[in-house]
Amino acid sequence: MSHTIGTPANSNIPQWVYQFGGGSADGSAVDRDLLGGKGANLAEMASIGLPVPPGFTISTEVCSAFYKNEKTLPSGLQEQTEIALKRVGEIVGSQYGNKEKPLLVSVRSGARVSMPGMMDTVLNIGLNDETVEGLALWSGDRRFAYDSYRRFIQMYASVVLEVDHDYFEDILEDYKNLNGFQRDTELSAEDWADIIEQFKACVVEHHGEPFPVDVYEQLWGAIKAVFLSWQSRRADTYRMLHDISHEWGTAVNVQAMVFGNMGDSSATGVAFTRNPATGENELYGEFLVNAQGEDVVAGIRTPQPLTEAARDKSDDDSPSLEKVMPEAFAEFVAITDRLEKHYRDCQDIEFTIQDGKLWMLQTRSGKRTTGAAVKMAVDMANEGLISKEEAILRIDPRALDQLLHPTLDDSVERKVLTKGLPASPGAAAGIIVFDADEAEKQAGLGKDVLLVRIETSPEDIHGMHAATGILTARGGMTSHAAVVARGMGRPCVSGAGALKIDIKQRQMRIGAVTLSEGDLLTIDGSSGEVLMGEHPMRQAELTGDFGALMSWADSIRRMKVRANAETARETEQALKFGAEGIGLCRTEHMFFETSRIMAMREMILARDEAGRRVALEKLLPMQRSDFSELFSLMGDLPVTIRLLDPPLHEFLPHEQADIDVLSEHLGIEAADIKARVDELKEFNPMLGHRGCRLAISYPEITEMQARAIFEAALDRSSGEETVHPEIMIPLIATSNEFDRLKLVIDKTAEKVFEERGARVDYDVGTMIELPRAALMAGEIAKTAEFFSFGTNDLTQTTFGLSRDDANSILNEYTASGILEVDPFISLDQSGVGMLVDMAVDAGRLTRENMKMGICGEHGGDPASIEFFEKAQLDYISCSPFRVPVARLAAAQARIRANEAAPS
Amino acid sequence: MSHTIGTPANSNIPQWVYQFGGGSADGSAVDRDLLGGKGANLAEMASIGLPVPPGFTISTEVCSAFYKNEKTLPSGLQEQTEIALKRVGEIVGSQYGNKEKPLLVSVRSGARVSMPGMMDTVLNIGLNDETVEGLALWSGDRRFAYDSYRRFIQMYASVVLEVDHDYFEDILEDYKNLNGFQRDTELSAEDWADIIEQFKACVVEHHGEPFPVDVYEQLWGAIKAVFLSWQSRRADTYRMLHDISHEWGTAVNVQAMVFGNMGDSSATGVAFTRNPATGENELYGEFLVNAQGEDVVAGIRTPQPLTEAARDKSDDDSPSLEKVMPEAFAEFVAITDRLEKHYRDCQDIEFTIQDGKLWMLQTRSGKRTTGAAVKMAVDMANEGLISKEEAILRIDPRALDQLLHPTLDDSVERKVLTKGLPASPGAAAGIIVFDADEAEKQAGLGKDVLLVRIETSPEDIHGMHAATGILTARGGMTSHAAVVARGMGRPCVSGAGALKIDIKQRQMRIGAVTLSEGDLLTIDGSSGEVLMGEHPMRQAELTGDFGALMSWADSIRRMKVRANAETARETEQALKFGAEGIGLCRTEHMFFETSRIMAMREMILARDEAGRRVALEKLLPMQRSDFSELFSLMGDLPVTIRLLDPPLHEFLPHEQADIDVLSEHLGIEAADIKARVDELKEFNPMLGHRGCRLAISYPEITEMQARAIFEAALDRSSGEETVHPEIMIPLIATSNEFDRLKLVIDKTAEKVFEERGARVDYDVGTMIELPRAALMAGEIAKTAEFFSFGTNDLTQTTFGLSRDDANSILNEYTASGILEVDPFISLDQSGVGMLVDMAVDAGRLTRENMKMGICGEHGGDPASIEFFEKAQLDYISCSPFRVPVARLAAAQARIRANEAAPS
Repeated sequence: MSHTIGTPANSNIPQWVYQFGGGSADGSAVDRDLLGGKGANLAEMASIGLPVPPGFTISTEVCSAFYKNEKTLPSGLQEQTEIALKRVGEIVGSQYGNKEKPLLVSVRSGARVSMPGMMDTVLNIGLNDETVEGLALWSGDRRFAYDSYRRFIQMYASVVLEVDHDYFEDILEDYKNLNGFQRDTELSAEDWADIIEQFKACVVEHHGEPFPVDVYEQLWGAIKAVFLSWQSRRADTYRMLHDISHEWGTAVNVQAMVFGNMGDSSATGVAFTRNPATGENELYGEFLVNAQGEDVVAGIRTPQPLTEAARDKSDDDSPSLEKVMPEAFAEFVAITDRLEKHYRDCQDIEFTIQDGKLWMLQTRSGKRTTGAAVKMAVDMANEGLISKEEAILRIDPRALDQLLHPTLDDSVERKVLTKGLPASPGAAAGIIVFDADEAEKQAGLGKDVLLVRIETSPEDIHGMHAATGILTARGGMTSHAAVVARGMGRPCVSGAGALKIDIKQRQMRIGAVTLSEGDLLTIDGSSGEVLMGEHPMRQAELTGDFGALMSWADSIRRMKVRANAETARETEQALKFGAEGIGLCRTEHMFFETSRIMAMREMILARDEAGRRVALEKLLPMQRSDFSELFSLMGDLPVTIRLLDPPLHEFLPHEQADIDVLSEHLGIEAADIKARVDELKEFNPMLGHRGCRLAISYPEITEMQARAIFEAALDRSSGEETVHPEIMIPLIATSNEFDRLKLVIDKTAEKVFEERGARVDYDVGTMIELPRAALMAGEIAKTAEFFSFGTNDLTQTTFGLSRDDANSILNEYTASGILEVDPFISLDQSGVGMLVDMAVDAGRLTRENMKMGICGEHGGDPASIEFFEKAQLDYISCSPFRVPVARLAAAQARIRANEAAPS
Repeated sequence: MSHTIGTPANSNIPQWVYQFGGGSADGSAVDRDLLGGKGANLAEMASIGLPVPPGFTISTEVCSAFYKNEKTLPSGLQEQTEIALKRVGEIVGSQYGNKEKPLLVSVRSGARVSMPGMMDTVLNIGLNDETVEGLALWSGDRRFAYDSYRRFIQMYASVVLEVDHDYFEDILEDYKNLNGFQRDTELSAEDWADIIEQFKACVVEHHGEPFPVDVYEQLWGAIKAVFLSWQSRRADTYRMLHDISHEWGTAVNVQAMVFGNMGDSSATGVAFTRNPATGENELYGEFLVNAQGEDVVAGIRTPQPLTEAARDKSDDDSPSLEKVMPEAFAEFVAITDRLEKHYRDCQDIEFTIQDGKLWMLQTRSGKRTTGAAVKMAVDMANEGLISKEEAILRIDPRALDQLLHPTLDDSVERKVLTKGLPASPGAAAGIIVFDADEAEKQAGLGKDVLLVRIETSPEDIHGMHAATGILTARGGMTSHAAVVARGMGRPCVSGAGALKIDIKQRQMRIGAVTLSEGDLLTIDGSSGEVLMGEHPMRQAELTGDFGALMSWADSIRRMKVRANAETARETEQALKFGAEGIGLCRTEHMFFETSRIMAMREMILARDEAGRRVALEKLLPMQRSDFSELFSLMGDLPVTIRLLDPPLHEFLPHEQADIDVLSEHLGIEAADIKARVDELKEFNPMLGHRGCRLAISYPEITEMQARAIFEAALDRSSGEETVHPEIMIPLIATSNEFDRLKLVIDKTAEKVFEERGARVDYDVGTMIELPRAALMAGEIAKTAEFFSFGTNDLTQTTFGLSRDDANSILNEYTASGILEVDPFISLDQSGVGMLVDMAVDAGRLTRENMKMGICGEHGGDPASIEFFEKAQLDYISCSPFRVPVARLAAAQARIRANEAAPS
């Protein structure tokens, strides 16, 4: 770190102040401890030569000295600050306190980590009755100058002088009422000047002293206020709760104000270094001449495109920055290139041009659609900017859902009503709703919902989440609706100006067409089109960049990815999404079809084993053909078949009408059926007669299922190509249960093999889904040939919380912070995870290299997948639509595990 | 070991044969490996000078040599055997194969452990057409001699020659039919001689060779058959299943036959060295002159008392052994004394007097009633025969129940119907049933059942277990009914000869009184009386020998014993039984009283917190007074109070009539109540909204309960004597839940202490009753001040099996051997126990010396208590009636742990 100011080499006074801007900086991103997070970031930007509004950081050591020294500032600080301030003035060509061209500054706190309870920001410091005139003159906008001044007084008084904010709001309200103004924009410079006088009086009344007119008194007041706020009660509490040391202290950042609204040579804008919607490598953004930053994102004025290329594309007739300010534009383009290379990622940039001079206000990683994220990651890896591993780590697997969204079927003519901005890609159709609550309600009823709003705000988030798509009448590509929708992976069309919404009538109008809440509508977030009714959809293709990324992921991950599937449709879907096997075929799902449920019920209602066998004989060919189809689709990929699991009453009718139908069909008295239904009722069916317990009571069911599996496997085997089925016994708590059922399966196998004169290899394994099975895994592994963790049930019993009853409890628990996440969504790594780890270790101690996987819902959850990688499972199995998510997450988990491993 | 026969010191031939009898033996009890279990025991008896029928053991090494040497017997064996046999003859005064006074022998197998599938016994070896005449002459009973001969042929042919047993039965049946005999006893010596000829022909036909007449051929055939049976398929399987080495081999025991039915100078009997019903130190037993062993226990002839003292006591007019055979009696008494001293326990002895000479056939530890066991143990410790620790270990804690049985209330006149033998003490009343199945059925319906049988057999065991008492018409004090009932701790009156049972009519008659199945009856197993109807009962006193034993146990055990109790009655009972605290006060039990349930329901039905608080205000004084009473009864003993645990719907009415009453009482629409009842319904209430989850949702309930506890504690504290309540939070799965509720309790405490201006110390701890709590115990122990293991719930969730639904499953599992014991009765030490161990270790790692106990049903189960001792719990808590059981079991566990500890 260079020592450039205020500390002559032979002085005893330490360096308190670190300058940035003007093409250099005293610090950099690594100096977080000394400069705080914000100070380090500003130094970083300045040090790579960005035209950051200049300023300086008063280090955290000053804060420590301040508290050590009975809340007085250390000697030398004043001198160093004044030197730094002077240099800031030199860089921007103005001077602090100067009446003609006053330098205004902001003061912000900046601890190592951001912390609620600390003073945040005071803007426009340096304004008083004299300098405000200078600002008016310099900016050429008297109203702007006086508005800035009154804002400064209000902000400074409340934050630094601790005068209640409401007093000022009351004065302003009264003034407007008295003069018949509705909105702030109606007030003139003179009105603001009148109000400023009242504000000053208010400060005297409540603070006891007049508002400081001395600009240095203003500055030091703000700096001290930051240091004092370090020990505010709220900050103290926050540190305590988050284990942050009280010793760290905060830094203070003083930075020159720049203004994009100083006439037509000023402007302000936002930009992405690549297109955040598509990922194309093109500069992308918007700006407004003579405007403040808020104006661009607020959606009040429609912003102009940055580049000519973008202007051509969009049929926009407003001039581009490239055209309007070619020099600033050229500098800006060069900077964006440097920024992306420096940060090695697409940047979201805020900039201001003040009087022709470009200032970079902020740069950060740019939010993007998942499609864009994939394209960017693949492009950057191909460009050599990042490695393939980094490319993989760049994509949030949970967001892949978005890419698996359908698109509009182009073979059908589009009935386009209007066109807005293509704010978030993918097509969506649903019934129109006009507010977030209704969206949530209708979605809760299982309906696809399109949320239609004039514009969205943070209050709409839950409705956006519930909706399949979002349509707004106002707002650009970086409006709230657009940004949030992309983040959530919801298709969105924003700024569809032709759209008129009558919220009271619950209607919308586009030209001559009037639609009511509940009517069907379709949007295409990739084209911006809004279409009449429900347009047919096409499923996503998994090729191109997506395919490239997935193939990189496949080459890196260690764990296999299987799918939970029973039907041909699911199996085909799973294969299309890259499943490498079936990890869970739930045989009971095969019994619910109308044609089969009768035979199933006949079996359950049979009075004895003989009666059950008669019914099982009817089920056998159905099961065999199911398995035959499955084996045929899966070829030589592994298929794990779980034996009958749910309690029998799930198969019986409970309504009298259904019981009567069954009674007629089977020739059994309805009363007898009712009696059997009642007999099978359990207090806690989740902890009742199900899983292997059924098979122990009725081994003939297991015999039938095993026979169906072996016969199908033999049917589908020929020559060298043999099917190798994996048979899985559910709900094992003791090795004795397993051994007994394995014997039934083995005996059935021998019988079938003898009958057919042919054999297949097969494995018999078990679900580990009860705490006891996990605890006794070493014993169970003596005979079990594989484990598959059933983390749904394992979570239920480990927590003693049934999924059917847990909803309101878990909502309360996650809302109040008792649980960080719903353990049914993301694996409870400390509790349930401990059982998984124990079972893996014990199982493999007994049976080296034992095959182990997981087939609970957690198989599709990235955080859980990372855990399973660490736990050394061989595969994860999830629903077909989650297979790509799991493939990517497994690769990421592998990369992180490799990084964490001692080299 | 001395080498007395067959092995000259300079011979190379090893000692194959080990002699016993005649006052000495080559081996002793420690030579199990060499002599097998039976051989070692015989050697032990002989070596301490008992007149055991002499014999010898062919060692297990011969078996090994036999198999090593292609199934031929090793050289030297024949010589050693013949020498041994000769000596046996000398001792008994007869000679093997001698025609006048033939020595007969038995041959038995004897492995280290007894093993099914091996040849058991062949009796009367040495009989042929010549020696049978000698036996007839010598015994003076020709019929006996020929009956013995035909039995020998039948047994030898089927066991050694492998001729099917049924052939002989058929011959016998045909003979009886042909000659018009009904029973075997009608056959004369000549009939048996005829049959013997047919038997011999049968052997020729099916074995291919004649039955061996050479007595040595008979002997070697039997010996070889034993060795060959070592590798029978059944024995092989048994060894495989029980991890018994095939190398061990079996020994063969050859022993002289003795006969108690050789006329009036012969007798046979059984004896206990102390009274097995009362424990009195008096010789106790029965004998029959000129009889075989089976005759005494079969209950066909009524046996005579051994001693004059016993004869006087029992008003028996049959002469005693003391009178009839004074010399043999004197010798017998001296031997029983020596036996008890040698084995340091009461012995159950079988003896035979053959022609005036006493032979000891068997001695083993005598079964006894629990009362007798306690008296014997305490007496023996006081006599210095055993230590106090041994005395404690002698008592099966599960049997203590028997002592806690009520006795008949003597203030009420006894309506005695008849008197039988006082076979097993304690009084019992119940409805009459006439067979075991009915007993089980009625008991299953919750009824107290008296099983009334002519005599019992092993097929009746399940009915005896289900019955509260047993009454038989036939059989003595050592009959099946008497022995089994004492073992089970069931009161029993046996041999009530006046009792006539008509099983077909399901009626019994005693004199003029006829009773039907289902009528009430009372028995007094201590007096032998049978009483009309249901006689009032008196509770047991816990003083005398029982008190002494318990005080020894208390001085030895480490774990404290507490009781699970809420009411004053239970608490008083617990204190009487020696409870040292309350380990579980279930506060919800206090809400079910009629006067309280309304306020409870009002709270549940309240629409908001304010409404709940109104109802809780009503409950507060009730809870406070409950706790006040509890603290007052318990003095300075610890009291652990568990906060509300069950799901709320358990408090609501479910029948329409009850709902209507509640509706009227609370002024709430019945439909609204019904709706709330439905709303609170859960699919799996065991895994639902209960335990701490209720308290998280409704902290005001916890506030009320905590307030009631603290106010009561302050009310009951004065000066130095302060109550120190332990407050326990149920169903914790995460430390966050615990922390949140501890905060509520701590805040309430501070509020109450401030209001009262006084404080008490208190602890806040948690149940460990979910697998996750056990897994996260280290974390939870950071704030929890004690743990109490709720092993009922922990078993449910670890097994994924709800107690409400598990009955038929567990019956099936224990019957078929999938589970050894019902894990709700005796702790599953490997699975659930692993969680307990983990939680204890992790908890104490966080909080050294953390107080830990257990309050599930397992707290009263001795096997579980032994586990809890090993797990280093501080206390066990069980139902009041199990407290003495727990005290004793805890002492035993401690003694065993000390023995196991490395010294």
